[in-house]
Amino acid sequence: MKRFASLLVVIALLAVPIVVTAQKTGRPGVLQLQSPQNPRLGFVIHGGAGVITRGSLTPEQEKEYRAKLEEAVLAGYKALKEGKSGLDAIEIAIRIMEDSPLFNAGKGAVFTADGKNELDASIMDGKSLNAGAVAGLHRVKNPITLARAVMEKSPHVMMIGEGAEKFAEEQKIELVDPKYFFTQRRWDSLQRIIKEEQDKAKKEGSASVTRELAENRFGTVGAVALDKDGNLASGTSTGGMTYKKYGRVGDVPVIGAGTYADNATCAVSATGWGEFFIRLTVARDIASLMEYRALPVQQAADTVIQQKLQKAGGDGGVIAIDKFGNIGISFNSEGMYRAYIDKEGKPVVEIYKQQ
Amino acid sequence: MKRFASLLVVIALLAVPIVVTAQKTGRPGVLQLQSPQNPRLGFVIHGGAGVITRGSLTPEQEKEYRAKLEEAVLAGYKALKEGKSGLDAIEIAIRIMEDSPLFNAGKGAVFTADGKNELDASIMDGKSLNAGAVAGLHRVKNPITLARAVMEKSPHVMMIGEGAEKFAEEQKIELVDPKYFFTQRRWDSLQRIIKEEQDKAKKEGSASVTRELAENRFGTVGAVALDKDGNLASGTSTGGMTYKKYGRVGDVPVIGAGTYADNATCAVSATGWGEFFIRLTVARDIASLMEYRALPVQQAADTVIQQKLQKAGGDGGVIAIDKFGNIGISFNSEGMYRAYIDKEGKPVVEIYKQQ
Repeated sequence: MKRFASLLVVIALLAVPIVVTAQKTGRPGVLQLQSPQNPRLGFVIHGGAGVITRGSLTPEQEKEYRAKLEEAVLAGYKALKEGKSGLDAIEIAIRIMEDSPLFNAGKGAVFTADGKNELDASIMDGKSLNAGAVAGLHRVKNPITLARAVMEKSPHVMMIGEGAEKFAEEQKIELVDPKYFFTQRRWDSLQRIIKEEQDKAKKEGSASVTRELAENRFGTVGAVALDKDGNLASGTSTGGMTYKKYGRVGDVPVIGAGTYADNATCAVSATGWGEFFIRLTVARDIASLMEYRALPVQQAADTVIQQKLQKAGGDGGVIAIDKFGNIGISFNSEGMYRAYIDKEGKPVVEIYKQQ
Repeated sequence: MKRFASLLVVIALLAVPIVVTAQKTGRPGVLQLQSPQNPRLGFVIHGGAGVITRGSLTPEQEKEYRAKLEEAVLAGYKALKEGKSGLDAIEIAIRIMEDSPLFNAGKGAVFTADGKNELDASIMDGKSLNAGAVAGLHRVKNPITLARAVMEKSPHVMMIGEGAEKFAEEQKIELVDPKYFFTQRRWDSLQRIIKEEQDKAKKEGSASVTRELAENRFGTVGAVALDKDGNLASGTSTGGMTYKKYGRVGDVPVIGAGTYADNATCAVSATGWGEFFIRLTVARDIASLMEYRALPVQQAADTVIQQKLQKAGGDGGVIAIDKFGNIGISFNSEGMYRAYIDKEGKPVVEIYKQQ
């Protein structure tokens, strides 16, 4: 029944004449938000991409994810309607997801091989091209808020580790005991991976990526916004990769990889196998395809995700929005938790590839 | 006399008909390396950009810089001639500069506000788009070698802090006592900045960028190469920014900002005010202008440095090379330590804006 309802939403969206690009690509989530009621407001979030197939979530789990995504997308959109900036909307929505144990960011961060939680985040202002990024945090409750402080309250773009936490302290940003990030589910996941890796190492004499690891690779959260002043912004936050070692950092705090925003083109937030997103500078490349090739945002996103990323062997997805409020959503993984505000101002929540 | 000799070199270069782009831009350092003797080999290095005006160096200092740049560029080129890869040549040349106290990388790294040395580096292989980046190191003698190990010996692209040093240990990469990075010159520079900042804070009640700081901002080293197999590669290494706080990281370990390489377009290594290079994804943008607008490498470099970076208020420079061996060098600072191999296989060393 839920599936049928989702299908109806998609059909309804495709039927709206304003959805030009969607008709071209046959993809939902591409629409213009320029109705008189909501002049040029746009808001899209994601809660991570990965092996999310229908049936891999229980009905209760699916309900929980849908409810939290709806809460976050509505909260961000409400801020935009109240005249707040895209950066405000992004911070509000991402904090909601960071505070939930459902997503691999903030509270629900996965564990490193050492049993720690290491968090990264970034944010970018499309108007000024200013940006903030933080990596290797252990005590910051809401990394997105610290990333924003780095952007707005320091001359720097990127801060890492203890230095970043010292800055957080000075900025009176909430710090928590590292235990705050403990969740049984993520801990169990780490234990399963450790066991799988040990079994594998015994058999093959080498430890490579296991099934559990592959399934737990993703889970970043992010948001992109177009506010009433026509400014674009994007933000991304993550708990990294389960079982990661050696202070590994993925694409999230790498401006141009996991996050990019430029009023001249688009705002992008990515989620996926971070290494590939760094190598391909995924977020910047989508903006570049708009800047230099004048591609529409959905086509730019598809070119990078469905062609370049796919060819390189990486997986994951992006959400993007351009200065007209056109939304681009593209992923080559089985699913991606995502939500956006449609042209009627209503939230649309999607999880699977085929809704 | 030296100035006159340099001028002659420039005139000689411009006179060579093969130097097409140089004639267009009126800039030295743009030439094709496709003579029969050196089929498709190309090698360029930089030792940092900044306020390097004629007269700011004593004749002895200038001689030292020129000698070390020549040693490094010749060592990398020798490796290429022996059939080694571009990655080998880059690592060899950058290690020479890291081991010298002259440059702000490795041994000569500047001090943070806490009196520490924090080193970053990255390397990228244009053939595979594989990359390695490290940040926040205190004990790794040659960060470029660790960046290469991250690229070649791990599934990751970026590692930071203690985790990265643990990986270095496992890979048997040389670690040194943090005291190794002490140099009197850099220490004195930190002390002058601390004093200037204190004086300034007393006067204005706020500490902003001082003259000393502005002059000591730069000093990254880097290299780009085209090897006998037609593969492009680039690498960059830095000691960061004098008086930097909060685990600040600049553009060097950010793939797409300080370093990028793609056989389809070019290899780039940057040096300058890192924050601007991150926001503009400088290295990737030069490659994108070649990929999507088919600009020649010098024009792509000039577009990003002389127009975009200049307009944004940032400064610094880049070295770049394309798959035909065309070199692009562009900077909007007073000077940039740089060297390349000309079409006769001879090293050319330059420092100032007008040679």
